[in-house]
This record gives sequence, structure tokens and C-alpha cells, in this order.
Amino acid sequence: MTREEAEQLDAADPLAFARERFILPENLIYLDGNSLGALPRAVPAMLADTAERQWGDDLIGSWNKHGWIDWPTRVAAKLSPIVGAQTHELLIADSTSVCLFKLLGAAAHARPQRKTILTQQRNFPTDLYVAQGLAEMMGLQLKAVPADEVIGAIDADTAAVTLVHVDYRSASIHDMRAVNAAAHAEGALTVWDLSHSAGAIAIDLDGTACDLAVGCGYKYLNGGPGAPAFLFVADRLQNDLQSPLQGWMGHADPFAFEDDYRPARAINRFLTGTPSILGLAALEAGLDTFADVSMRDVEAKARILSQIFIDEVEMRCGAEVRLESPRDPRERASHVVFAHADAYAVMQALIDRNVIGDFRAPTLMRFGFAPLYNTHAQVVAAAEILADILIARSWDQPRFKDRAKVT
Amino acid sequence: MTREEAEQLDAADPLAFARERFILPENLIYLDGNSLGALPRAVPAMLADTAERQWGDDLIGSWNKHGWIDWPTRVAAKLSPIVGAQTHELLIADSTSVCLFKLLGAAAHARPQRKTILTQQRNFPTDLYVAQGLAEMMGLQLKAVPADEVIGAIDADTAAVTLVHVDYRSASIHDMRAVNAAAHAEGALTVWDLSHSAGAIAIDLDGTACDLAVGCGYKYLNGGPGAPAFLFVADRLQNDLQSPLQGWMGHADPFAFEDDYRPARAINRFLTGTPSILGLAALEAGLDTFADVSMRDVEAKARILSQIFIDEVEMRCGAEVRLESPRDPRERASHVVFAHADAYAVMQALIDRNVIGDFRAPTLMRFGFAPLYNTHAQVVAAAEILADILIARSWDQPRFKDRAKVT
Repeated sequence: MTREEAEQLDAADPLAFARERFILPENLIYLDGNSLGALPRAVPAMLADTAERQWGDDLIGSWNKHGWIDWPTRVAAKLSPIVGAQTHELLIADSTSVCLFKLLGAAAHARPQRKTILTQQRNFPTDLYVAQGLAEMMGLQLKAVPADEVIGAIDADTAAVTLVHVDYRSASIHDMRAVNAAAHAEGALTVWDLSHSAGAIAIDLDGTACDLAVGCGYKYLNGGPGAPAFLFVADRLQNDLQSPLQGWMGHADPFAFEDDYRPARAINRFLTGTPSILGLAALEAGLDTFADVSMRDVEAKARILSQIFIDEVEMRCGAEVRLESPRDPRERASHVVFAHADAYAVMQALIDRNVIGDFRAPTLMRFGFAPLYNTHAQVVAAAEILADILIARSWDQPRFKDRAKVT
Repeated sequence: MTREEAEQLDAADPLAFARERFILPENLIYLDGNSLGALPRAVPAMLADTAERQWGDDLIGSWNKHGWIDWPTRVAAKLSPIVGAQTHELLIADSTSVCLFKLLGAAAHARPQRKTILTQQRNFPTDLYVAQGLAEMMGLQLKAVPADEVIGAIDADTAAVTLVHVDYRSASIHDMRAVNAAAHAEGALTVWDLSHSAGAIAIDLDGTACDLAVGCGYKYLNGGPGAPAFLFVADRLQNDLQSPLQGWMGHADPFAFEDDYRPARAINRFLTGTPSILGLAALEAGLDTFADVSMRDVEAKARILSQIFIDEVEMRCGAEVRLESPRDPRERASHVVFAHADAYAVMQALIDRNVIGDFRAPTLMRFGFAPLYNTHAQVVAAAEILADILIARSWDQPRFKDRAKVT
């Protein structure tokens, strides 16, 4: 594909209007929105207003006057069309890891006779660590099987099945509906991590009968570095589940300052401490970048961009790299992984040419395509630059091999 | 005391320089810095820089370029003189409730043969809720005794003693040194909550042999609404304790993406998910309001301000209210509580006159004195206005009795 052909696709892109919602450096091809979403144009004013006018002028009264107390649910409601859930099934809170701990703990507590949390091998690491810590604390077994054996491994001892919806390396997608059905047939609950799918592909939590889910605010949702996470609890389960992380914001009457915990009705019982108002302000601006956006269009563009990248890279330098993502676009979310023996140095050489992806040890280069702001022309240009670096071996320099960087 | 006499004290105040570090509405007497600290003047620029220059321009590279990865420890180090700990014993993370869960869980895990978490009755509610949830999860007993019976109740079954350092109602102070010594004599660990003392009075965590502590970032530390919390783990314990909330940021090598959790050495193992960078930015500005401030001066001013308030209120209208804080200033931190049968309406009438304190059901009015920005003249003026409202019974109006407000 020529850059001109790509520009024609950009001109016809039904999501082109969304690009103006971001501030991005000129001449940068940013293909790492799956790690940290770009800065929404509305964020600086939102932060200034929250800090100066609300906190500064109205101080403690802002909890009432500006409705801070309701922000965890009000902002979460904006996720409803993005993840296919009812507004009252969603909450913004804590970090993804802490939210996962709460929901996995609640699921295990709801199945007290069952002793197994089931997951896949090579699930996202922090999800494994959370489950390992919880399992040790509650005297449970964490069982990790190959991804394609999860459904078959669900049995009468399975309290919960927890999986990342989209694999952080390959972008392969679990079949939510099938896993939920298999889990429910055995009486188990499902806990999904949507970190690499929310905002990238269409999700239907209610339609596929998900029980519980968590997700990250700072990737495709553009909520800023370390943004608060979100959690989902299906309506039908809310009043039966109990969070192990009980704090005053999840109490039925937080300002009664009672000695004994009484969980709030519905989703609020999954709050713990005081929510980060500045974090919520930025995340709200992030979620607003999805206003009037169809997730079907997002998913379609995600697949077109990733397919163009695969095709253009393989056509130009297929022998140099090996695709580690599914070749069928229906099995992929919105990022693509190629393996190369010197992936770290190649990625540094790309960054040096203003193409930003990321490296995952030992051999993976990961490229994320954010449908709201990445263009077809950028994807073709990135493939050209990658091919240029690989064919000229310009990555093979000491300055690209310094491993001091942490991400 | 006349307002003129108070102004003379302000002129001689060794902390007067710090007041310029805040933006406060004119004509407002803000006596609620114990609930939400005032806006530091540096916050708006700090947020703008973090959002626009760092996140916006440098995107994912900011984790290296701007050292975001180290902010939880770098910012925490600024707490060192405020709480009397070594810099490497401190960490910024999560909310106070979540931090307390981690440290209580770690303490209980370190004393596996012991089944009791000891606390006081009417401890801060969220601390009780956290401990109740943890105790249920780990099969422990939470035992709450009257505050003055805690030391006598520590025994060989006590895994951990957890107390708020300063009572959120009365401002009475626990004797840290005595509780730590009694706990250690029985082999128990101590977990302190400094939410109502950090930034208000001098604290010596190391000098009094504290084991573990948590505290709030948004009260006297001025970190903004829902600021991240802090935690302290004594140097001698760090590598033996294990957080129950295991996440990737607490892993020995987060970017190796290993399947199995290996805790980081030292304080970093108490991190869980990705830290809130915007929250850290604001909290850093909050901690910077303590630069070149002596905590001895802070404590001395806290006691003078609270004593002036007590004296002036009782002199003017002692029969109308009842002091619920210790009368001896050495037994008080930096807030004062008066009881009144119609406390809610009185507080609303005060707010209507631009004096901001808070109400704690059913009968308490709480007034916090932030030594960095409250003045002696404000305290005298607040006492005059309170007396005026009480003597004239101007609180006795329907508009002051509407209970719609949440805080």
C-alpha cells in the first residue's frame, strides 16, 4: 500500500473526527496507546478546573457542590457503551490489580466449598500475582493451564475462572461467551480482565453473560498514567457478593461512622477508600474521547490497521521478523506482535526514528493501534521505517543496545 | 484575646512564611484542613507540567525520562522529616484503606500462630472495616477494647495491634512508644494510622520503635482530594514481610513479566498496581509545603491555635457547648471537637458565615487547625462568630437543618 492509498482510507475514515480530541506531538508515530493512551485535549482544562475552581475555591464543600462523592459511578457510566454493560454495573476505583483482588476475593467467598481459581498459563503477570497472593491468603489453589485447555479444565471445584480477555503479547482474544457458558454450567464465576480490549474492540459484557470484570484506565481509555481502574459486577450478583477490601466508601452509610461494616447496596460496595478525584477528572476526559464513537467502527478500524501493518511489514521484510499474533483478524484485538532476535535494539532504532512501540522480553516488538487517533498513513509509514531499519540493519549499533530503560 | 493580640502572634509566627504556599479564598476561615487540606500554590503548574509536557509530549517514555517509575519512593522520601522515618522506609501507594489492608495482612501473615488483631473500640471506622474484612478472610479474630485498655489486652495471641495515632473525633493521642513496647514484649507487631497526625504534630516512627504505619495524603499533607496514601515499614522488617496484595509494581523485576511473583527487595514490595502519576504530582506539591518547616514549630502552633480556640469559645459561650477533646494540650493533636445538641445546624450557620469546620453525627462540631496556613487571628475570629451564632441562636432556622449534604 502506498502512503497515498493510506491517506485515501484516512479521508474516508468514520472515526477521523476523533483524532482532534487528542494532543499528539507532530511527526511522531505513536503505536503504544495500548500501554499509555495519548493525552486527550480536554485533560489540562479538566485538571485545572478540578484543582483550582473545585478543590481550591470550594475545598471540602466540593464533595457536595461538585458531586465528587458520585464521581466513581458517574464517570463509570460513560464506560457503558464501551464494554456493553448497564451503567449501574460499573465503578471506577483503585488500580486494576486491586480491583482484581476485590472481585476474585468476592467470587471465591461466594463459592466457599470450592478451592480452585482457574486461569491460563502466561496470563497477564500482575493478574497471576494477584491470584497467587489471594490464593495463599484464602487457602485456595491457583491452577494455570494452557489457554486452549481452560474450558475443559473447569470443574465442580472451580470457584472462579479468571482470564485476560485479550492477550497482552499476541492480541489473541478469548471467547467470552464460551468461557462464561462453560463456567456457569459448572457453577463457577468468571472474572475478566479487559485491560487490553476495553476501548480497542467491541465488548458485550451483559450479552455474553459475564459475571465480573476489571480493566485499565490508562491504555485505550486514555485516562493518563496510573489512571484509576474500572470494575464490573453483573446486576444479578451485586447484592450477594462481598468485597474482601472493605472500606468506608463502600459502607451503606459512610458518614454515619459506624463501628461495623454494612456493605452499600449494589455497585458502591466495591469502593474501598476515598477515590482519587484528580485521577477521575483525567479519566473522565479520556472516556469522553469515545463520545459518539461506535465501538463497531473502533473494532473494524483496529483490524484494518493491524492487518495493513502485518501485510506491509511482511511484504517488505517478512524473513526478518516472525508474526506472533493471530493471522486471522477476527482472532486479534488492536495490537500486533512481531518477534526478532534483537527486538530490543530494533525497537530502540524505531524510537530513534520517531516510531514508538514497545519491547517485551526477550524477543517481542509490540505495536498498538489506537483507532481514535492512529491513521492508516501512520501505519504504512511505520511499516516502511521498520523495514528500512531491518533491511539496512541500522539497529545493530551499541547505542540501541543499552538496556537502562525500564519500559 | 482580641483580634489585635492575635495579629501580634501572627506577626511573630515562625511558620508565617508557609501561608504563601497556599491559595485560599479571601474572607474564608477554613478550619477543615484535617478533612481536606488547602490547595498548594504549586499544584496547578505541577499538574499542567505532568499532563502536558510529560504525558502529552513524552508519552510512554516518561516512565524513564521523567522517572515516573521512581515517584512512589522519591515523593515518599519527602515524608521523612514529617513522620520521623528513614527515606527508604516510606512509600506512596493506593488509598489509606488499601495500604492498611496490605500492612495488617502482612503483619498477620508474619505471625501465623496468632489469631487476634487488637484494636480499640471506636477506632476510625474505615480502619475497623478493613480489619473486619481481613479477619474474615484470614480466619482471624478482631478484638476491640476501650482505648485505655489496649495495652493491657495485648497477649501471646496478638498478631498485630492497630490503632489510629490521633482520634478523629477528640484529637486525643495514643502513646506510640508505650504501645510499641507493650506489643513487642508480647511478640506482636504494631500498625499505626497517622491520618490525623501526619503533618499536624511531630511524629517519630523510628524513635518510638514503630513497626508499620499508614497515613492519608489529603488531610494535613495537602495532597488533594483522594490523594494517594503513604505507608511505612521499618527497615528491620522489610524483607521478612509479604504483602497480600501482590501486583506487578511490587515484583522484583516488573518488566520481566514472569509468571511467578517474586517480591521486590525492601519497600517496593508493598506496591501493587501502576501508581497514579497525577495523584503523585499533586501530593508532591502538598509535601513541598512542608519544605524548611520544623515539625516542632508545627506541633507548637497546633497546640496554641487549638488552645486559643478552646479558651475563646468557652469564655464566650461555655455553657452552650461541651469540649470533647482533651483539655491538656499535650494530649491533643491539631483539631478540637465541641458537642452541641444541634451541632449540624450550628455548623451550617458557621459555614454560612464563612467559617468551615465539619460535623460528625450526632452532636459533634470539629475544627481543624492547619499550622501551615491557619492564623491566630482566624482562630479568634472563628470563636467570636461561633459565640455569636450560639448566643443569638441564629442556627435555629430551617435552612440550616437540611440534611442533604453528605460531608
